[in-house]
Amino acid sequence: MKENRLARIEALLNDRQPDLTVLMDQVHKPHNLAAIVRTADAVGIGEVHAVRAEGNIHRCSGTAMGSDRWVKANQYEKLDDALSVVKQQGMQVLAAHFSDRAVDFRSVDYTRPTCLLLGAEKEGVSDAAAEAADHHVLIPMLGMVQSLNVSVASSIILYEAQRQRSEAGMYGSRKISDELFERLKFEWLHP
Amino acid sequence: MKENRLARIEALLNDRQPDLTVLMDQVHKPHNLAAIVRTADAVGIGEVHAVRAEGNIHRCSGTAMGSDRWVKANQYEKLDDALSVVKQQGMQVLAAHFSDRAVDFRSVDYTRPTCLLLGAEKEGVSDAAAEAADHHVLIPMLGMVQSLNVSVASSIILYEAQRQRSEAGMYGSRKISDELFERLKFEWLHP
Ligand SMILES: C[S@@+](CC[C@H](N)C(=O)[O-])C[C@H]1O[C@@H](n2cnc3c(N)ncnc32)[C@H](O)[C@@H]1O
Ligand SMILES: C[S@@+](CC[C@H](N)C(=O)[O-])C[C@H]1O[C@@H](n2cnc3c(N)ncnc32)[C@H](O)[C@@H]1O
Repeated sequence: MKENRLARIEALLNDRQPDLTVLMDQVHKPHNLAAIVRTADAVGIGEVHAVRAEGNIHRCSGTAMGSDRWVKANQYEKLDDALSVVKQQGMQVLAAHFSDRAVDFRSVDYTRPTCLLLGAEKEGVSDAAAEAADHHVLIPMLGMVQSLNVSVASSIILYEAQRQRSEAGMYGSRKISDELFERLKFEWLHP
Repeated sequence: MKENRLARIEALLNDRQPDLTVLMDQVHKPHNLAAIVRTADAVGIGEVHAVRAEGNIHRCSGTAMGSDRWVKANQYEKLDDALSVVKQQGMQVLAAHFSDRAVDFRSVDYTRPTCLLLGAEKEGVSDAAAEAADHHVLIPMLGMVQSLNVSVASSIILYEAQRQRSEAGMYGSRKISDELFERLKFEWLHP
């Protein structure tokens, strides 16, 4: 049992995609935060970023994040701080956002270092975030409803990234540092 | 404005896919039911099916369904009643379910008449439903978490169906009956 667990942990650490992440722009409902982080883990994302919703300082922390044992959630007071972290990592920022410059989400290359930026439940992506994004991506809507639930939208896009990265052979070979690999292996083996 | 709305309603009624649906097997959290129905509308599903969760008789009705103004939600006390409805419509039943006979969700042909069967938040797909399903489909999981949120899982699969049907040219030409077309157009124009 222990050996199975070790093998599983090593395999999934080799699937981790340090150049793929999510930035939540004031998303605040706990079940949405939890679902987003859970899907992030499932496609190999080890670290996500969240800008706190105003007046919700304590909402998006701890267990609200759900799978926070497996995924590191970095929280920020200001959007700019979050953006500068992902931009310093050389990531393209893709805002999931309805706008004139939005392109179909399937037309984008997710094998590049990518940060998917998501908007709040009601307000959507803030103007500042929309402007800072390199591209806007859109999931086609063929019904009466104007938008999808935010955790649903993020998951559809993340699984397109997973599909592209899987086809490009980007899973299964270690991309995280030896130091992180050893540390997470230790932490997850000894819960 | 009115004319725009009429044109939009006609266009989306021509996108409706009467041979694509969802069967929720005792899914009971209102926000999950709402998100599933919302995504169903977005991919052109006009009618869904829900087997009530035991002890939750009144939970999955009315507004809990979310987009129930646009999507008809049929509720059943018994799984068999729901299954016989979709089977009489000639649909293949695909259970989103972890099992030995599960195949990757992307390997399935969703241009065929299809009912996607989803399991409850905790218990998953019931044994009876798993047995009755023609196939089991699985979304790959590359992390520590064992399953996705049910509304997330359904949406990822439904958008694969939307992709395939879109490529096959299945949107944009009327597939619902003239009677339903006229009735919905009237209802939605005069809310
Ligand atoms: C419920 S939506 C916000 C709707 C808001 N009223 C608006 O117009 O932006 C919450 C977030 O989910 C994401 N989202 C929802 N539906 C989407 C779609 N069809 N395409 C891309 N992103 C979507 C976006 O990031 C959005 O900011
Ligand atoms: C939270 S899961 C239930 C987990 C339950 N413990 C089990 O093992 O089945 C709720 C439902 O979401 C769907 N689901 C979740 N993750 C899935 C995945 N990776 N592939 C296919 N369906 C999934 C299934 O229909 C499942 O019954």
